[in-house]
Amino acid sequence: MKSPICEMLGIEFPLLAFSHCRDVVVEVSKAGGMGVLGAAGMSAEKLEQELNWIDAHIGGRPYGVDLIVPAKFASKGQTTKPGESVSKVPEEHRAFVRNLLEKHGIDPSTIVTEERLSRGTRLGDNMGDQGAGALLDVCFAHPIRLIANALGTPPPYMTERAKREGVPVAALVGAKEHAIKQVEADVDILVVAGGEAGGHCGDVSTLVLVPEIVQAVKPIRDVPILAAGGIVTGRQMAACMAMGADGAWTGSVWLTTTEAETSPVVKEKYLAASSRDTIRSKARTGKYSRQLRSAWTDAWEAEGAPAPLPMPYQSIITEPVMGRVTRLAEGGHEGAKQLASYFVGQGVGMMNETLGAGQVVQAFKEDFLGAWERMTGLFEE
Amino acid sequence: MKSPICEMLGIEFPLLAFSHCRDVVVEVSKAGGMGVLGAAGMSAEKLEQELNWIDAHIGGRPYGVDLIVPAKFASKGQTTKPGESVSKVPEEHRAFVRNLLEKHGIDPSTIVTEERLSRGTRLGDNMGDQGAGALLDVCFAHPIRLIANALGTPPPYMTERAKREGVPVAALVGAKEHAIKQVEADVDILVVAGGEAGGHCGDVSTLVLVPEIVQAVKPIRDVPILAAGGIVTGRQMAACMAMGADGAWTGSVWLTTTEAETSPVVKEKYLAASSRDTIRSKARTGKYSRQLRSAWTDAWEAEGAPAPLPMPYQSIITEPVMGRVTRLAEGGHEGAKQLASYFVGQGVGMMNETLGAGQVVQAFKEDFLGAWERMTGLFEE
Repeated sequence: MKSPICEMLGIEFPLLAFSHCRDVVVEVSKAGGMGVLGAAGMSAEKLEQELNWIDAHIGGRPYGVDLIVPAKFASKGQTTKPGESVSKVPEEHRAFVRNLLEKHGIDPSTIVTEERLSRGTRLGDNMGDQGAGALLDVCFAHPIRLIANALGTPPPYMTERAKREGVPVAALVGAKEHAIKQVEADVDILVVAGGEAGGHCGDVSTLVLVPEIVQAVKPIRDVPILAAGGIVTGRQMAACMAMGADGAWTGSVWLTTTEAETSPVVKEKYLAASSRDTIRSKARTGKYSRQLRSAWTDAWEAEGAPAPLPMPYQSIITEPVMGRVTRLAEGGHEGAKQLASYFVGQGVGMMNETLGAGQVVQAFKEDFLGAWERMTGLFEE
Repeated sequence: MKSPICEMLGIEFPLLAFSHCRDVVVEVSKAGGMGVLGAAGMSAEKLEQELNWIDAHIGGRPYGVDLIVPAKFASKGQTTKPGESVSKVPEEHRAFVRNLLEKHGIDPSTIVTEERLSRGTRLGDNMGDQGAGALLDVCFAHPIRLIANALGTPPPYMTERAKREGVPVAALVGAKEHAIKQVEADVDILVVAGGEAGGHCGDVSTLVLVPEIVQAVKPIRDVPILAAGGIVTGRQMAACMAMGADGAWTGSVWLTTTEAETSPVVKEKYLAASSRDTIRSKARTGKYSRQLRSAWTDAWEAEGAPAPLPMPYQSIITEPVMGRVTRLAEGGHEGAKQLASYFVGQGVGMMNETLGAGQVVQAFKEDFLGAWERMTGLFEE
């Protein structure tokens, strides 16, 4: 496909796949798209292992890594000792979670503990510049072809280093004002994510945000734009490119692939869900993110629930507990099944079968072509 | 353009324009699209006048009318005497509005009155089958080419009569389940409206809902689908048609045209607004609708505000008061300017200049063609 982003990244088809699963990254890149490993929650050691595995299996195809390197944390030079931030989770939040677990027939005494909560601090630790710096060191020791920042403007130590290494920097934005800031911060690729996206998101829809940002940004600099948010089919990708995007950035659609490490319980929920079964809430990470609705999200959204803690502290209580809940659900615990949830976008309504990641890329290509033929048909005699 | 919807409606370009303004209806139809008069809040006498005017000016071009004919109200055979439903507005809501007006330097004593509130009951009266029946009588005495129901499934007395008159029936849907019900209720055209739409809307985005409903409905019956929600440019219309829609249904974009009767104060707010300046709230009509954020919507969304009344009672207090507030704002009242608001979709961020309605149709056509050329360019050697 003739698109500047394909040349920049060395790929055939401008479909980028965000995934925490190295197998998905490899399969997407091998099928002509580009896999991007979501590594924000990983230790440097784990990331090193994952990238070694990818290098050994991807056959020289290009791939990327996605981190969370918030400018404001890094610029403060803030560092935390592992586990230190557990003390930032108030008793009110712990009691609420204990109560919610009990209501669903789960004994909280071995779950809401200092030891378990301290496992939830990895993301927080990585968000200091020490953690993020260590991850960047690992990334640049591997032949990555893209580095993305999932939240906020990439700090100069990230963009400058990437420039020296010859690696394009992508950044996610959910509002026009942020897009303009990112372009001014020397970002190479904008990922424009609508409010229907899984994970962190704004509240302006993809169909509105993509043309609005194309219009606002392209006159400043001809920066490639990847559309994101709700995209799980080739026709949606084509739609976004008709509006001026240069390609698509996807996440949710890979969660139900055969390669994905998604919990079988959550995968089953995704396959059954309609587009109305997601919610945009602060209760998972402290910032608005979209996820599957469940008894867990309902409880946090109900009147009287504690206000979510600011990022990264909310994750310290939600992630380890939800990890344990998911394991219990996999073992058949009914209460845990009701609570189980994970990030996903509104596109989940069209994720109705499990395919291999390479097959999904192929389906995107065919569906994209179908969309173009449909449009061409409108102009035929 | 070769599209089944163009043949069905007798138009050249499948762009439908919902507007309360007869001038917009006429100009859009004359430019090759189709104007649809929003008449839900009109008396039968007023509608008769408007349609006479349209017939005299539209030069035989096709046009439509949009009503609210809820199945459940009509099936109860509920009728109300004009003004009767004012008693359904509790003192709590009246006191809240009086207080809000006072806070903004407006004397509420001549505004929150029985007499003024009774002016807000027209919509409620029309929602009984007597009111809706009278409006349908007027519609079918004119050469309308489309009748639309803006909320819920059209009742059999509407669909059966339209069938006898040879007029296609369109219905708005905001969820896949509703779309399937509408197709089963014999609707001729589905208007699939995403959550970014102005006015009443669901919460699933256009980019997700359109392909989801195309996929779910077309195997049942090949009903034409118009995409709605956030569409203010030809490239967005093209995007939706690439995903399988047969055309677009638009509303917000006409509110800033030269012909629109939009208050100059609100028009100015629209032109300045970004896509983040709208809110989806129950506080205007009792059902979720999207509108411009203002001090009025902020107050109703704040903690401690009264819960919105069910439709149509909430409108009885909001519409007459907001009418008065808008007049005061037009006279330069600062507090009233802060409160002023009206329905609009997230596309408002790209509504940055005032054009004639015919020029807007032309701009849509050119931008649509540009989108198609952009896609074609992707496949060139």
